[in-house]
Amino acid sequence: MSTGKSNELGVGMVGYAFMGAAHSQAWRTAPRFFDLPLVPRMRAVAGRDASAVRAAAERLGWDDAVVGWRDLLTRDDVGLVDVCTPGDAHAEIAVAALESGKHVMCEKPLANSVAEAETMVAAAEAAAARGVRAMVGFTYRRVPAIALARQLVEQGRIGQVRHVRAQYLQDWIADPQAPMSWRLDKQKAGSGALGDIGAHVVDLAQYVTGESLTGVSGLLETFVHERPEAASSSGLSGVADAGRTARVTVDDAAVFLGRLSGGGLASFEATRFAWGRKNAIRLEVNGSKGSLAFDFEDMNLLHFFDATEEAATAGFRRIVVTEPEHPYGGHWWPPGHGLGYEHAFTHQVVDLMGDLAAGRQPTPSFRDGLEVQRVLDAVERSAAAGGGWVPLP
Amino acid sequence: MSTGKSNELGVGMVGYAFMGAAHSQAWRTAPRFFDLPLVPRMRAVAGRDASAVRAAAERLGWDDAVVGWRDLLTRDDVGLVDVCTPGDAHAEIAVAALESGKHVMCEKPLANSVAEAETMVAAAEAAAARGVRAMVGFTYRRVPAIALARQLVEQGRIGQVRHVRAQYLQDWIADPQAPMSWRLDKQKAGSGALGDIGAHVVDLAQYVTGESLTGVSGLLETFVHERPEAASSSGLSGVADAGRTARVTVDDAAVFLGRLSGGGLASFEATRFAWGRKNAIRLEVNGSKGSLAFDFEDMNLLHFFDATEEAATAGFRRIVVTEPEHPYGGHWWPPGHGLGYEHAFTHQVVDLMGDLAAGRQPTPSFRDGLEVQRVLDAVERSAAAGGGWVPLP
Amino acid sequence: MSTGKSNELGVGMVGYAFMGAAHSQAWRTAPRFFDLPLVPRMRAVAGRDASAVRAAAERLGWDDAVVGWRDLLTRDDVGLVDVCTPGDAHAEIAVAALESGKHVMCEKPLANSVAEAETMVAAAEAAAARGVRAMVGFTYRRVPAIALARQLVEQGRIGQVRHVRAQYLQDWIADPQAPMSWRLDKQKAGSGALGDIGAHVVDLAQYVTGESLTGVSGLLETFVHERPEAASSSGLSGVADAGRTARVTVDDAAVFLGRLSGGGLASFEATRFAWGRKNAIRLEVNGSKGSLAFDFEDMNLLHFFDATEEAATAGFRRIVVTEPEHPYGGHWWPPGHGLGYEHAFTHQVVDLMGDLAAGRQPTPSFRDGLEVQRVLDAVERSAAAGGGWVPLP
Amino acid sequence: MSTGKSNELGVGMVGYAFMGAAHSQAWRTAPRFFDLPLVPRMRAVAGRDASAVRAAAERLGWDDAVVGWRDLLTRDDVGLVDVCTPGDAHAEIAVAALESGKHVMCEKPLANSVAEAETMVAAAEAAAARGVRAMVGFTYRRVPAIALARQLVEQGRIGQVRHVRAQYLQDWIADPQAPMSWRLDKQKAGSGALGDIGAHVVDLAQYVTGESLTGVSGLLETFVHERPEAASSSGLSGVADAGRTARVTVDDAAVFLGRLSGGGLASFEATRFAWGRKNAIRLEVNGSKGSLAFDFEDMNLLHFFDATEEAATAGFRRIVVTEPEHPYGGHWWPPGHGLGYEHAFTHQVVDLMGDLAAGRQPTPSFRDGLEVQRVLDAVERSAAAGGGWVPLP
Repeated sequence: MSTGKSNELGVGMVGYAFMGAAHSQAWRTAPRFFDLPLVPRMRAVAGRDASAVRAAAERLGWDDAVVGWRDLLTRDDVGLVDVCTPGDAHAEIAVAALESGKHVMCEKPLANSVAEAETMVAAAEAAAARGVRAMVGFTYRRVPAIALARQLVEQGRIGQVRHVRAQYLQDWIADPQAPMSWRLDKQKAGSGALGDIGAHVVDLAQYVTGESLTGVSGLLETFVHERPEAASSSGLSGVADAGRTARVTVDDAAVFLGRLSGGGLASFEATRFAWGRKNAIRLEVNGSKGSLAFDFEDMNLLHFFDATEEAATAGFRRIVVTEPEHPYGGHWWPPGHGLGYEHAFTHQVVDLMGDLAAGRQPTPSFRDGLEVQRVLDAVERSAAAGGGWVPLP
Repeated sequence: MSTGKSNELGVGMVGYAFMGAAHSQAWRTAPRFFDLPLVPRMRAVAGRDASAVRAAAERLGWDDAVVGWRDLLTRDDVGLVDVCTPGDAHAEIAVAALESGKHVMCEKPLANSVAEAETMVAAAEAAAARGVRAMVGFTYRRVPAIALARQLVEQGRIGQVRHVRAQYLQDWIADPQAPMSWRLDKQKAGSGALGDIGAHVVDLAQYVTGESLTGVSGLLETFVHERPEAASSSGLSGVADAGRTARVTVDDAAVFLGRLSGGGLASFEATRFAWGRKNAIRLEVNGSKGSLAFDFEDMNLLHFFDATEEAATAGFRRIVVTEPEHPYGGHWWPPGHGLGYEHAFTHQVVDLMGDLAAGRQPTPSFRDGLEVQRVLDAVERSAAAGGGWVPLP
Repeated sequence: MSTGKSNELGVGMVGYAFMGAAHSQAWRTAPRFFDLPLVPRMRAVAGRDASAVRAAAERLGWDDAVVGWRDLLTRDDVGLVDVCTPGDAHAEIAVAALESGKHVMCEKPLANSVAEAETMVAAAEAAAARGVRAMVGFTYRRVPAIALARQLVEQGRIGQVRHVRAQYLQDWIADPQAPMSWRLDKQKAGSGALGDIGAHVVDLAQYVTGESLTGVSGLLETFVHERPEAASSSGLSGVADAGRTARVTVDDAAVFLGRLSGGGLASFEATRFAWGRKNAIRLEVNGSKGSLAFDFEDMNLLHFFDATEEAATAGFRRIVVTEPEHPYGGHWWPPGHGLGYEHAFTHQVVDLMGDLAAGRQPTPSFRDGLEVQRVLDAVERSAAAGGGWVPLP
Repeated sequence: MSTGKSNELGVGMVGYAFMGAAHSQAWRTAPRFFDLPLVPRMRAVAGRDASAVRAAAERLGWDDAVVGWRDLLTRDDVGLVDVCTPGDAHAEIAVAALESGKHVMCEKPLANSVAEAETMVAAAEAAAARGVRAMVGFTYRRVPAIALARQLVEQGRIGQVRHVRAQYLQDWIADPQAPMSWRLDKQKAGSGALGDIGAHVVDLAQYVTGESLTGVSGLLETFVHERPEAASSSGLSGVADAGRTARVTVDDAAVFLGRLSGGGLASFEATRFAWGRKNAIRLEVNGSKGSLAFDFEDMNLLHFFDATEEAATAGFRRIVVTEPEHPYGGHWWPPGHGLGYEHAFTHQVVDLMGDLAAGRQPTPSFRDGLEVQRVLDAVERSAAAGGGWVPLP
């Protein structure tokens, strides 16, 4: 199904905003730093507006621009569809792409509802039987420090998990005059901080511990209900339009508790109202033999406490995760020459290309995405019912 | 009622373990660094075992040692009783002392149950009418950085409170071979991590924000149910006795959510199982105009983000809270010469002496202590019922 | 002189190791995130070994591979030569390229000696008269936090400079078994830690303060004189060859003092023997009105102390330099989504393209590079003479 | 010679300002937390002004107040004289006290000149032959994190020392309107930042490494030559007197380089002009097998990098130096309950009492103090000669 040279894979991308730019940089960069068994080719980007999509293709470096994502599905030179749209379009595009035999990379959250996500999982599992693969973009798994954290847990270095505390703190819209965005519109985005950023920390907690949540309770809150309309929609933030206002229909913040399948306690928070915290994805895991701590604002660092050490010299180790011995290490720069946000997207491409070439299921799968969706859904139901406990299957 | 010179106040202390040592240092030190309108005199310490209490009096610097706390109540040279026993004795001693006309300083948590705490509040309020005062020892309020945080909130520097995240993380008994202690015995301690250390962060959250919790939901967990008996009871930790084991009857860890009276969301955690975290009392408050962050492991620092600043130079300010302009500043050392754990106890004595001399109600009052007790009780009820929401009056 | 479309500039690169990879990523990435008035095209890479250079062209994304850098000078489709070789070849290539009418971007240090650097400056200034431009790659100037530091100094936010302390700490060869490299060979590299990494902190100190050094004194040291030969030369580190050893002919570490033209004191250190410090470029500047601090191991942060603030809330501000208001901000990702090492190279391309399009002299110029070279030379002379003071012109 | 009970030692203190308050707290506190073989008794404090010294005795808790330090030397109840005056009086008092058979604790720097220090060493060594002991107060050696650093070096945990970088940064007088003080008067203080705070980092560097400096080169600078007179002399800072000014006759800042006896390189800085740095005593040592780092602004932490660990999990360990296994640990509070500035003075008393009881020479000795003095003197000579190298014997 791949096209062009036998070791190439044509990619078509839908959407070209923030996520589209990040994905484009990854498709372009991966083969420059890694030996890929399957080399992606940036064939076409799809969008609604002809001139806008043409400009995007030029700016982001795609060979072609097409209006309407369906055209990607009939192209011979496209073997993979990369879905970077708002969440309300994920299910339709991903299912159609899989059914037409294209691999799919889909941004998170997988869908705006559990029902949609279930449909997508069904499509993905049917496609897998035909060798067509689907992956969801919980990209932070590929930050080297997070990948190292997962390795250390797998190796038993922190023992049995007792505690997870996971926070995703931003101040993106803490200013009540920050303008409206599709991310604040339930129709488009499904949910607010919970689905947009809370999804990441739920996935990270489950991924790093290798466990799943067995139940949750939580609270949601919208602090600012009315915002200025955006005069322009460019960028993540836009510019406020003086005259008109729009109604925010999603949560601004979410706090929730959970229990892990291994018996540990978990505490989560996702907010866009934490002044001064820019993109603070914090994960701390305490086990019976040690602890791990991470903060994305220092994304090249992992902190590791090894309780088996002698007490006099034990302490959290500040690991600069840039050594050749580290995940994805040795392909970039010498130690201490840190990576940035976009590199995790490149790692995602690298792993995906490896899995497709080997005929393996890439991770996180749509089923992993569905599991996150179920957690988010349970938090919403808990919050709607006043904060009570909601068990997960 | 004070004794000796008119500006002196005789103090009698009950209990002489960890808290007794901290209080003794404070009674001794306060008049050396602060001009006190009422000067404490360390008259007598009371305990059960005659030779042990005599040794404690000598070591901690008390004039006299008495067997049984009741003797303190009849001494003319004692005007204030300082209760440093395990929680199960707080109510009886404090009520009797107040009724006999002695001021009372009582360690936290106020009591082992809401009912006891209510009795104590009734006694305190009756005594107050006679000019006899009661105070509960939520000492961390007097860490300068915390006191500064409270000032900044009061001054409106962070605006309306949106979020509180408060954690008290220790690894005291993360090792399953750490021996049994009275702090792990429900009879003595009332509760475990929740009451011992969770109480502090509940008080800090309410104190710094100036708000109260209107409801909570939470989970408790005991990770290690059976521990070696302590061969000796000296110190906080003791030494394990090889042969015998004892049953832990309290929680090892607690996580809970709450809503603040002003509409904000709060998230709490208290655990003795966070390997590598020694005494990490972390408080972060995000408001509509700024944020504050504190970690007791760096107790001389307060971090403050002022959202009214221009974006290019805004950032969390690392305030070294040792300037003459800071709470309790200028009485100790030059800037940057940090204070330690015990200094907050000295500040507590300073403030108490000032309040008693002025005929003011010291804070936190027994009623403040009762409020914390009610929160802890609600968390326990939530946990017992599987994690559902429990409103607070 | 530029080729192809009128707003395009063909680039030819010499050398394709560590620096070549970083530059290639920058040439490729700059037009994707910035609107460039002049768009670079990656025409050809030059090297000595035909098959190696062909593989590099393929891997790094250059249209063509040529053997010998002189061929770049006669190509019509090359308007700029990017010199990424070891220092011993800089002068010859750069001068020849400038004389043949090609713009030059030259890696630092400008040359292996002051004499060579002077020749290069003469060539650059002669070329400038003909509109042909030369720039030296002190890339760290384009780390956003450093660029912000420069802005704040220029705006007078820290007042008159009193102190600079600048360190470049690595542990690259702290292990005596780390193999030989051209960077440890005086013939190739000119000097060791002093010229390779010390050059960066000298440039940063002068750039951020806007002042120059008026004299220095210093010490050099080689801790490990004999090392295993590298069995392979790939990567920065290589792999040790068991049998043979080679003699290290450069310094492993340098410490030096200096005076700034404005009267301040400066302290410098460059070492490859600081275990645990991976790429710790630390710059702290104290002025009469405030201070700045930076550490490349947290490259997205700048710390700023404003002494004009009220004492109670003054503190170093931890500025996350990722806002649209920050240098190079708004072109990449939302706030808090940090950049990495390679982004400064992209910014270098962006600024260079802007300067070339506008007919402006890019900075740092070869003369700036010569000034750094003179400082390094003075440090070497001081060290050779036992550490005495060496004035600078 | 000790007085009162056989296991008691009467102490007389000269001077009662900043250092007097710190020493008083230590004399008072040491026996409360440590089992001392010799228990200090605070017999008398001496000063020039009768009413001031009486008030000081009352405030600081001394039994008696005497006018003129000579009276202490004839008292039977005084066995040790504690010298807390400005440096110009150290030699006279210490020598006289030793000759009269009193042990001496003398604040640092030992003296205002090498000649005075040599006289003091001669007196101390003569006295030692008679069992009378002298010690100089480089108190920071007794900060637990520093003591742990020394232990780790002694145990070979960092191997051979390659680098020391030591800084003492304050902003005490960065404001040009900060008033005059005896510390800025060469007559009283001998030198400025160099002798007052630089002395500490020289001692720490030599103490922690166990090596001595074999030569130095350095620069001194006075940034503000004229200051307002202090209207009152209370406290470290005083209050400016509007009308009169006084001339600063000492250095405001010093930077210097040195070589260690083991071949390592050292870099030092001492300044009172580093805005935002309150009491930043920073020491970093890099050895052939690991590294250590300390900053007094986080005085309960030591950072340790162990290069013998596997690369994937190596990192600076943030050791919270409050465990029972740590120096002076277990006598104070549970882990994580940090100590403050004054505790090192208490440890100094503890060690001194142990040494006196055992008939051992306490450390640092006057000879250690002389060695520091010689380094400071060499720095001054280097600076006076324009920054050249000055070898040390």
